[in-house]
Amino acid sequence: MIIIGEKINSTRKATKQAIADKDVAFLQKLAVDQQAAGADYLDVNTGAFPQEEVELMKWLVPVVQEVVQIPLCLDSPNPQALQAGLELHKNGKPLINSITAEANKFPKIICLVKQYESPVLALAMGDEGRTNTTADRFAVAKKLIQDILAEGVPPERIYLDPLIQPVSVQNDFGQIALDTIRLVKSEFPTVHTTCGLSNVSFGLPRRVQLNRCFLVMALAAGLDSAIVDPLDDELMYMIKASQALLGQDRYCRKYIKAFREAKASS
Amino acid sequence: MIIIGEKINSTRKATKQAIADKDVAFLQKLAVDQQAAGADYLDVNTGAFPQEEVELMKWLVPVVQEVVQIPLCLDSPNPQALQAGLELHKNGKPLINSITAEANKFPKIICLVKQYESPVLALAMGDEGRTNTTADRFAVAKKLIQDILAEGVPPERIYLDPLIQPVSVQNDFGQIALDTIRLVKSEFPTVHTTCGLSNVSFGLPRRVQLNRCFLVMALAAGLDSAIVDPLDDELMYMIKASQALLGQDRYCRKYIKAFREAKASS
Repeated sequence: MIIIGEKINSTRKATKQAIADKDVAFLQKLAVDQQAAGADYLDVNTGAFPQEEVELMKWLVPVVQEVVQIPLCLDSPNPQALQAGLELHKNGKPLINSITAEANKFPKIICLVKQYESPVLALAMGDEGRTNTTADRFAVAKKLIQDILAEGVPPERIYLDPLIQPVSVQNDFGQIALDTIRLVKSEFPTVHTTCGLSNVSFGLPRRVQLNRCFLVMALAAGLDSAIVDPLDDELMYMIKASQALLGQDRYCRKYIKAFREAKASS
Repeated sequence: MIIIGEKINSTRKATKQAIADKDVAFLQKLAVDQQAAGADYLDVNTGAFPQEEVELMKWLVPVVQEVVQIPLCLDSPNPQALQAGLELHKNGKPLINSITAEANKFPKIICLVKQYESPVLALAMGDEGRTNTTADRFAVAKKLIQDILAEGVPPERIYLDPLIQPVSVQNDFGQIALDTIRLVKSEFPTVHTTCGLSNVSFGLPRRVQLNRCFLVMALAAGLDSAIVDPLDDELMYMIKASQALLGQDRYCRKYIKAFREAKASS
């Protein structure tokens, strides 16, 4: 399971404020805490400042890297911002977040993916507008994966995001995402699958708990990466529990090791 | 989602003691509380007293029925105990728990199912011993379903239990159960699927939480009934959340209605 820590994202209120204030201590603490909690990548996003996104990426990437050893997940639809981050990145290969099948975006992003030999988050979204059935969503995902593979990028560098939309908007949006994950894993076993969770619960009460339930379902469908808050202990517990339940944790060793102390009390 | 309340089961320590003491107030409270919490059936089991199982079933069924309106889930491998319960049952049709594919048991139980026109919990277990692959497990489930259908029992009266075994014993026992649920629902869409949860976590820490995670996965695989503790608020929450996430709750109305009060605080 590959955990992408979501907290250094300017669309989050506290993070936006910290970036605006150039609050290095706050941002570095977010980085250190997420790494300690088990993150494999740290998302870095400055998109809430569209006029300064590139400059802020140049400032933020070294700030974060100064205190952690794990690679970053450079998060922007803007190729200039991605390139700025890629040039300054030093801890291994950063995850490029994201590429889509949109004709005016794919060529620029794929160039970066090839130039920097980076893994890439591929969002199942194209020019045909809304995809509101599993068949349509998977068709977009499949074409996007095939187009990336055709550029010589190996499948294990692709992180397919099925696009998570709110079940409050269309009742089967959750099921469509789960089915797309299952179909991608079936047709492209070595392509990773990932997603952010929070959209699924938009407009509903108890969003944090809904998101955790959805993550468990997505893991059972074949999700092997996620953009989450690694400081959410309950969510991280549910990931380890799911891995034990799904036979992905040999002899349940990791689960037992992590939670041995709680055995007597449960 | 059909909830079978698990608490009036003599393999549970407190329930066993209450049956031994003929503690009517305690047992009736278990019944009333489970009905109030949303149970559709109440499991009734006196198997921990093998010498008196039939007599205790005759005593317990009227005790429980006196205070609730929902039907019972008569739980015994012993046809005499089942028959005793069936004869005294009055609130609708009781669920017979259970029938298996074992040659020395199937004929007696199927007679009761036909005679009383009852729904029946069919446990995917036969004479061939352990089934440790999905293919073998589903073969047993499929044959059992087909044998019951061949007796003229309609599919919607069958509740197939895939047999839940501990992931601590064999790493993929959870996955085998999930895959069996999925295959049954795919091949027999109107056959119900059900299971008890607690075996899956045997030998591991934090069993209650593991069981809840497994239930969410099973619901996503197509489970439409479960033998659970309806007084476990967190578990009941996760069932409602899963139904909303899986598009089984139109406009998420039931979910919103149940949890509206919590919206502001989440």
